[in-house]
Amino acid sequence: MDFTHPDTWMRRALALAEQARPISPPNPAVGCVLVSPSGELVGEGHTQAVGQAHAEVMALRDAAARGHATAGTTAYVTLEPCAHQGRTGPCCDALVAAGVTKVVASLQDPNPRVAGQGFARLRAAGVEVVVGPGAAAARELNIGFFSRMVRGVPWVRLKAAASLDGRTALPNGVSQWITSEAARADGQVWRARADVVLTGIGTVLQDDPMMNVRLPDAARQPALVIVDSQLQTPPGARLWGVGGRRVIVYTAVADPARQQALQTLGARVVRCADERGKVDLATMLKDLARHETNEVHVEAGHKLNGSLMRESLVDELLLYQAPKLLGDGAGIAALGSFSTLDQAPEWVWRDIQPIGPDLRLRAVMAGRDHF
Amino acid sequence: MDFTHPDTWMRRALALAEQARPISPPNPAVGCVLVSPSGELVGEGHTQAVGQAHAEVMALRDAAARGHATAGTTAYVTLEPCAHQGRTGPCCDALVAAGVTKVVASLQDPNPRVAGQGFARLRAAGVEVVVGPGAAAARELNIGFFSRMVRGVPWVRLKAAASLDGRTALPNGVSQWITSEAARADGQVWRARADVVLTGIGTVLQDDPMMNVRLPDAARQPALVIVDSQLQTPPGARLWGVGGRRVIVYTAVADPARQQALQTLGARVVRCADERGKVDLATMLKDLARHETNEVHVEAGHKLNGSLMRESLVDELLLYQAPKLLGDGAGIAALGSFSTLDQAPEWVWRDIQPIGPDLRLRAVMAGRDHF
Repeated sequence: MDFTHPDTWMRRALALAEQARPISPPNPAVGCVLVSPSGELVGEGHTQAVGQAHAEVMALRDAAARGHATAGTTAYVTLEPCAHQGRTGPCCDALVAAGVTKVVASLQDPNPRVAGQGFARLRAAGVEVVVGPGAAAARELNIGFFSRMVRGVPWVRLKAAASLDGRTALPNGVSQWITSEAARADGQVWRARADVVLTGIGTVLQDDPMMNVRLPDAARQPALVIVDSQLQTPPGARLWGVGGRRVIVYTAVADPARQQALQTLGARVVRCADERGKVDLATMLKDLARHETNEVHVEAGHKLNGSLMRESLVDELLLYQAPKLLGDGAGIAALGSFSTLDQAPEWVWRDIQPIGPDLRLRAVMAGRDHF
Repeated sequence: MDFTHPDTWMRRALALAEQARPISPPNPAVGCVLVSPSGELVGEGHTQAVGQAHAEVMALRDAAARGHATAGTTAYVTLEPCAHQGRTGPCCDALVAAGVTKVVASLQDPNPRVAGQGFARLRAAGVEVVVGPGAAAARELNIGFFSRMVRGVPWVRLKAAASLDGRTALPNGVSQWITSEAARADGQVWRARADVVLTGIGTVLQDDPMMNVRLPDAARQPALVIVDSQLQTPPGARLWGVGGRRVIVYTAVADPARQQALQTLGARVVRCADERGKVDLATMLKDLARHETNEVHVEAGHKLNGSLMRESLVDELLLYQAPKLLGDGAGIAALGSFSTLDQAPEWVWRDIQPIGPDLRLRAVMAGRDHF
């Protein structure tokens, strides 16, 4: 890497932010690099787990640990330094106090408690502020945080594994494993970065899955959300065996006995019914956002997938496609019958990548990430 | 391009072969470049239409037209020079007569009338022969010719345009257009390189398609083959309106009146029934190979696609995938129900490429191109 080029420092800050991705939620993953006027690395850091230091403070501490002065340095940071007293102190004040004279930031923080105030406070203190470098990557890394802050709902990524003809299971239910071990391992990485793994009662009853992150270095377990209109989640299901993981059950019925049974197991049970006696999915997502959920990772059957899609609640598709044709079987999403092609929403490819013998297709609903 | 490197000359020969692709069938598409001892281009050429000059002769003629001597030159050619008197004279003799002292060839010609005899004759005349550079690309370009020569059947490429959930049409039959204009234009290029476009009577009756090549510079029209077990192809169908195109109808029934009607329109009608009263597809492919068919381009409905796949007669998939989910509708291939995943044949990705808003996936049946 050419460390004399400013973009190189921002790339390094982005790489640090990437390291923060599995541990920072519900906070955004941010990286920060401090560079001396002569172009030397002075200190670097990234967001720690919630309640602990932000990237800027980590970088300042790193500089101190290395015995480097921070006066006159430039800070490359992937998000606007915060201006508010949250769980930690305002980072912009820490930068000013350390004598940082220039801040290069990828993006303005969408958090209404920051939203430009960090930049304003830095400028008022005489710090030069440049905004923009690395913006696309920094946003992608924190798409769920941006979604929650700006839209008031999490970013919903629906994961599926299917054949070329769109089958996720054979008619007899066999679905293990349509895609390869490599594809399943990649799917675990996406699970791990989510705040919530969302599934339906059909999948719980049929497959009795754990729905946990099984990576060797998993820093945290995303919460599990079950869409369970009739409150049928068995208290003996394997999903209860995952330690230290929050479980939230959304239901459409009032059944105090069953609710009590699940609450005893540590679940939060939320009743939110729509007029058809099903879980109101849009309301559920708003509720999840209020509970600081940035990214929802959906792994469900075709019924729940279809309901989410019909209500236009899915932002991103993460589809592992095996080079096979399976004939009859279950599909990706029960969407019913369209009569014209323009009834099908348009998606836009984001990223296509071979994963082992399979293909990973990522697509975003057209126009959906312009917020 | 660095024209001092030998690979560069072979790349140029391959580019010439690519130009021959739409006009050379049933002959292989071959390119030839003659290079002087000092590394100068002396002449170049590619296979012409059937019965006309091969690549080597075209390159020699080009050298003559440029007024360049050919004595002592090296010939880069993408296939073994022919050794037999076919529709044209033996190319290896022409090279020897022109004083070519070295031949770099990508591949041995699988045609049993050549099959190493060209190389042997060159070596016997004191010409140095190197075989191998550019082999993979040269074979890919002529995969149908290799298939016919070695396996005695054409290379069968099945083209489909589908949604992410594997739908090729809505329940009401609407299928125009699931994929984009760019994808359809790309599909035309693949049609154009085939010797035969193959479809089924279902598609003929339902869509009344022309099934011709509609590229502005189309040099020839592939023959149209219709799988029509009951001889139902209407004499008034639009497909008969394509001038200068051979039509072959494979049927399972004897119906002299209908047969006569189609023959009057210029069709060849072939009866080859299997024990179920359907067209015997394997026999049909052998018959097509006997009639010098290298590549078959299948564009059919899910029934015929399914029959071809169940009989393991499809070598390559060419799938245009639109980033849409369509719910209910017709699938790519009617394969029936599998009970275990290993009943589904394995495919191997060959090439993945975005085409406009869509994705073009090419896959070859595992192990299928090792002949």
